[in-house]
Amino acid sequence: MESPVIGLKEIKEAAERIEPHAHITPVLTCSTLDGMTGAELFFKCENFQKVGAFKFRGALNAVLFLSDEEAAKGVVTASSGNHAAALALAAGIRDIPVTVVMPENAPDIKKAAVAGYGAEIVFCDPDPEARVAKLEEVAAETGAVLIHAYNDLRVIAGQGTACLELMDQVRDLDVVITPVGGGGLLSGTALAAKGLNLDIKVLAGEPAGADDAFRSLQEHRIVPSINPRTIADGLLTSLGDLTFPIIREKVDRIVPVGEDRIVAAMRLIWERMKIIVEPSAAVGLAAVFKAGGELAGKRVGIILSGGNLDLESLPWSA
Amino acid sequence: MESPVIGLKEIKEAAERIEPHAHITPVLTCSTLDGMTGAELFFKCENFQKVGAFKFRGALNAVLFLSDEEAAKGVVTASSGNHAAALALAAGIRDIPVTVVMPENAPDIKKAAVAGYGAEIVFCDPDPEARVAKLEEVAAETGAVLIHAYNDLRVIAGQGTACLELMDQVRDLDVVITPVGGGGLLSGTALAAKGLNLDIKVLAGEPAGADDAFRSLQEHRIVPSINPRTIADGLLTSLGDLTFPIIREKVDRIVPVGEDRIVAAMRLIWERMKIIVEPSAAVGLAAVFKAGGELAGKRVGIILSGGNLDLESLPWSA
Repeated sequence: MESPVIGLKEIKEAAERIEPHAHITPVLTCSTLDGMTGAELFFKCENFQKVGAFKFRGALNAVLFLSDEEAAKGVVTASSGNHAAALALAAGIRDIPVTVVMPENAPDIKKAAVAGYGAEIVFCDPDPEARVAKLEEVAAETGAVLIHAYNDLRVIAGQGTACLELMDQVRDLDVVITPVGGGGLLSGTALAAKGLNLDIKVLAGEPAGADDAFRSLQEHRIVPSINPRTIADGLLTSLGDLTFPIIREKVDRIVPVGEDRIVAAMRLIWERMKIIVEPSAAVGLAAVFKAGGELAGKRVGIILSGGNLDLESLPWSA
Repeated sequence: MESPVIGLKEIKEAAERIEPHAHITPVLTCSTLDGMTGAELFFKCENFQKVGAFKFRGALNAVLFLSDEEAAKGVVTASSGNHAAALALAAGIRDIPVTVVMPENAPDIKKAAVAGYGAEIVFCDPDPEARVAKLEEVAAETGAVLIHAYNDLRVIAGQGTACLELMDQVRDLDVVITPVGGGGLLSGTALAAKGLNLDIKVLAGEPAGADDAFRSLQEHRIVPSINPRTIADGLLTSLGDLTFPIIREKVDRIVPVGEDRIVAAMRLIWERMKIIVEPSAAVGLAAVFKAGGELAGKRVGIILSGGNLDLESLPWSA
């Protein structure tokens, strides 16, 4: 697999494309966390992005990228998470049909959120084969374009816009860190960061209980994510054949972090920064703590990926 | 009682005085909440202020206002909440002694927070008389200056700087809303707002279960807060003889809101804005919902007073 031919140019085009509809999210700092880590941290708050996650960037770029003819038939995806909500909102902005394939046993709260953004939900049995079959069925029936949550160059370019913005808001970063699940955010970030500055380091935090990306880099092949176990429920998926080559080429290191570190980092962000992030979004800060002295004195950008979670049950009040 | 002789001038002086140490807090907007209320809402995020609350402004202004001779003997207050933490941090900045009188039965988490900011804690029996006696004892022994949490013109001027900033960040506000407890934030806000724009309306939200300020305006006297019952634990105190006259003269209306509305508003801020506010800070938004159509189409500034609470037990997961 060769690294695909998108880069800074496509990310800048995506930024222009989504600019009328997406938020330029703020960058926050926290002197307490700087003191605790020894680094100078800059938190890019994608939890404040529309639908509460960076996923809106990629979904919107993909939807706006379509020709009128393609768009008329609508879009379809399989997701019960932030990508589904993001695609639904993006399709609504272009006023085109959107179908989301979800397992029957998805939580009611997620069904309601996606329906609330105007998507038609089609249920499937809760296994990967049934999901793919249902996706193909919907696409065949409607002619809708499949927008994968991360293994899609339009989506990757869109996700890269968060880092593009961050590096415009904060100059002279030494390091950028994201979480990694399927790799859409990480690959887009790496393309943007290295496109702007060859010397910048790009790191990712990954739950140790779902460390397929870490192992994929070690084994030089896509190691599938099988029975992942982590509270960071946005990071369960395997890398894709589009995200993996970019990550292999552009990412300096993936840092596996344990569940205790993820929960502790999440709680620190809540308590010290007074902002709400989902567990997946705390994995970047967890990686900074794990990396320890290595990042001391560095200017580190951390992309806080999202802020959607069930406020009824928090990890520390179990 | 005549309205005391401080105004916009003293608030501007306070803003200059605290500027080297206090955050200029951001103003956030939320299209969902605009849609739900029909108003255009601008949230002044004092939950992002140092110590997590606007109280730092007033405490710091009071500490920096002292002569060197006064300051050398230190400061003292009675509080187990945000004012205690704020005064401790402010005293630390000036490098002067600070004593906080607290009831023995204050929660450990609050004792630890105040101690963490470097204050000496002196315990008293948990009743108002014992607290006053202990305060006077400490002041007599040490010569420390008493900095009351709200009934102090230096503190009121400091609290007014949040509204001064807000009105610089957002032009042409029609209305400003704060919560009201002892009235430090409300009186400072009213002085700043009406000092800058005679046509602006100043409203306050107050828990119906602690509606002494509402009744004070009705009865034209300070009605003491007796056995208040509300989740908004920053708003339990009575008005003071310095805050009441300002509020009577400058505040257009106090809106009592029930507990359900406070919890619902707090949850909306968490879910929709992805920021952490304490129950007291949600009372302003609760008042907007209670006011209903009256604020439709208006540009409304809401001061989110703070973000300190026990993350172990949230009001909706009881």
